[in-house]
Amino acid sequence: MAQSSPSSSSLNPPHRFLLGPGPSDVHPRVLAALGMPLLGHLDPTFVAIMDQTQALLRSVFRTENRLTIAVSGTGSAGMEAVVVNLIEPGDKMLVCVNGVFGGRMVDVAGRAGAEVVSIERPYGEVFDPEEVGKAIKEHRPKVVGIVHAETSTGALQPVDEIAKLAHEAGALIAIDTVTSLGGVPVEIDKWEIDAVYSGTQKCLSCPPGLAPVSFGPRALEAIHRRKTKVQSWYLDMTMIERYWGGDRFYHHTAPISMNYALREALQIVIEEGLEERFARHKLNHEALKAGLAAMGIGYATAKGRELPQLNCVTIPAGIDDATVRGRLLNEYGIEIGGGLGSLKGKAWRIGLMGYGSRRSNVALLLAALETILGELGHRFERGAALAAAGIVYRSAKA
Amino acid sequence: MAQSSPSSSSLNPPHRFLLGPGPSDVHPRVLAALGMPLLGHLDPTFVAIMDQTQALLRSVFRTENRLTIAVSGTGSAGMEAVVVNLIEPGDKMLVCVNGVFGGRMVDVAGRAGAEVVSIERPYGEVFDPEEVGKAIKEHRPKVVGIVHAETSTGALQPVDEIAKLAHEAGALIAIDTVTSLGGVPVEIDKWEIDAVYSGTQKCLSCPPGLAPVSFGPRALEAIHRRKTKVQSWYLDMTMIERYWGGDRFYHHTAPISMNYALREALQIVIEEGLEERFARHKLNHEALKAGLAAMGIGYATAKGRELPQLNCVTIPAGIDDATVRGRLLNEYGIEIGGGLGSLKGKAWRIGLMGYGSRRSNVALLLAALETILGELGHRFERGAALAAAGIVYRSAKA
Repeated sequence: MAQSSPSSSSLNPPHRFLLGPGPSDVHPRVLAALGMPLLGHLDPTFVAIMDQTQALLRSVFRTENRLTIAVSGTGSAGMEAVVVNLIEPGDKMLVCVNGVFGGRMVDVAGRAGAEVVSIERPYGEVFDPEEVGKAIKEHRPKVVGIVHAETSTGALQPVDEIAKLAHEAGALIAIDTVTSLGGVPVEIDKWEIDAVYSGTQKCLSCPPGLAPVSFGPRALEAIHRRKTKVQSWYLDMTMIERYWGGDRFYHHTAPISMNYALREALQIVIEEGLEERFARHKLNHEALKAGLAAMGIGYATAKGRELPQLNCVTIPAGIDDATVRGRLLNEYGIEIGGGLGSLKGKAWRIGLMGYGSRRSNVALLLAALETILGELGHRFERGAALAAAGIVYRSAKA
Repeated sequence: MAQSSPSSSSLNPPHRFLLGPGPSDVHPRVLAALGMPLLGHLDPTFVAIMDQTQALLRSVFRTENRLTIAVSGTGSAGMEAVVVNLIEPGDKMLVCVNGVFGGRMVDVAGRAGAEVVSIERPYGEVFDPEEVGKAIKEHRPKVVGIVHAETSTGALQPVDEIAKLAHEAGALIAIDTVTSLGGVPVEIDKWEIDAVYSGTQKCLSCPPGLAPVSFGPRALEAIHRRKTKVQSWYLDMTMIERYWGGDRFYHHTAPISMNYALREALQIVIEEGLEERFARHKLNHEALKAGLAAMGIGYATAKGRELPQLNCVTIPAGIDDATVRGRLLNEYGIEIGGGLGSLKGKAWRIGLMGYGSRRSNVALLLAALETILGELGHRFERGAALAAAGIVYRSAKA
């Protein structure tokens, strides 16, 4: 553990249950990997670790894409990497906005010089393929950008039909899987997604700091056909693919320790099995949902679109957002998220992500909420939440 | 330690002595900090850690600049952050190029839409203030960019007079301290530097993954006066300063574990004392230099400009670069760097950086080189290298 001189404060973070929108709790094996001794970024052993990471990432993204790597930044750097590599100044991009991260994509695309067209849905809803198809036909964009799992609203957006409609119009499709990867199915090849980015700090249970990305053949062709340089040197895939590729051409110094952590996190996902992992997320979500319902708490997300790993729920009338989140943190060490954008003060975002999607976390959170909401005068039948959650687990075993 | 199922390969990096141009060996306390449990990026305790990190960074940069933070990417992201925030399309930037990283700055500035003017010096040399002053007067740039410690050549560039000349012409000065910070004096306020970036993986002995940056009042004024958005959303200081500043406005999820590591690494620097740290780097450098001279190995860097933390030395005639570096790595676990650019195959880059600047590393490297070079037929007096290094250490004590 860290030693410090008497005059300095030593690093000693309090224990938290990270049940918000991410970062989520990191698996102990991943923490151990982070602390391993460093290798040089061109060391043969590190190069082998990068190869393993690429193979694992392809398995988790369910893709054969050669250019499947971890960008050396957080999920937002992944978004920017996808946009600035696909877009040249003057290119048209259609962005579907139903939350904060769709909105962010509009901003990023505009800064890349795109002519941005956006269509909108209220927070918590998702898009119908037909309305997106109509906008594609009308605007004929080069790229369609859409968020698969909107971290600000907890909504899951089906993207396979939209990908088909984009391709019929000669457009590329780029999707945000920051919150979906490792928690619900992400099928890059089956859905024919051209470009995708994600983050490490959600359902992969790795600290934030890297952004898995993957580019398919159509996207690569568009990148190689560019007439202008990618505006970001740091995120330029035409150079980065030479470092991750066979010739290991030096670009920038890879974040060694974070790459150790990601490799270990992906290994854990594959050991569990993707289907088993998705089923676990679903079961704990169902139990949480039943428990919350017993306390009169429903979802802010459109019915049937709720992400199992990120439960965006409506704060009961008369209950103060900050009071409850403050008590959860200070009395129980539990972090949950507040609402963003139009849901600020109106919703909580409860993450059961990756390693954090566990029966014990569901039980602890329901127990803590029962106590706090009860003391704040919210009316519900005591004990009903845990009973309802228990029924879900028992039915799953039966 | 990481466990794996029998079918998976477990992460078990071999031990290395990282005596190249970086990443350098990480202090054990920093590795321990990396493995600490995660906090949320808006957790009050993490916010306090960020405040401590900012205060420590200001001490190490020797600045009072409020906007002194760690960018969530490696040193090259720091370079891009400085350039894209200061430059608007059409702005003129003068870049001084005497190595790979000056060349990279030209590329980054061009992508940001700058009208780039560059002046050049051969690899290993540095610029005279007069010649830079002349170019500033001729071209009247908005920003002058120069590398303080060129990682590709091991040359230290004095920048204080150049800063004065830039200001006399109404220009801003931005410097690259990736390899200098924590190894030789970096005096941001005394030298009146407007913008600076660095990396964590050199003399701070922290893994790569963050880029300390600092912006002074003139640079901030230029940023706030911009007519166009910063082209990179991820690196936009007008938004990032609101997260690191008082209002903690969410921008992107900070890399929590890497921020733990940086805080601990900076704490170690301050505990040792900056002057003591610089003296230690200098002493081990002098000992290495004396030892190498006894084997007939001199410096590729101009005399008097050698960086103590990064020794760029000429490979003796008849000795094959790859053979020696391969044997150092495979037989001793020692990594040193090869030459870059015009020095490829002609020079070695030997780093004695931060935690790696130790008498034991000097002794080990000289011992290994004596054995390998002797076996390869290089002629020199056996035993003279260690004796020469020993004299340096004895004189320092006297």
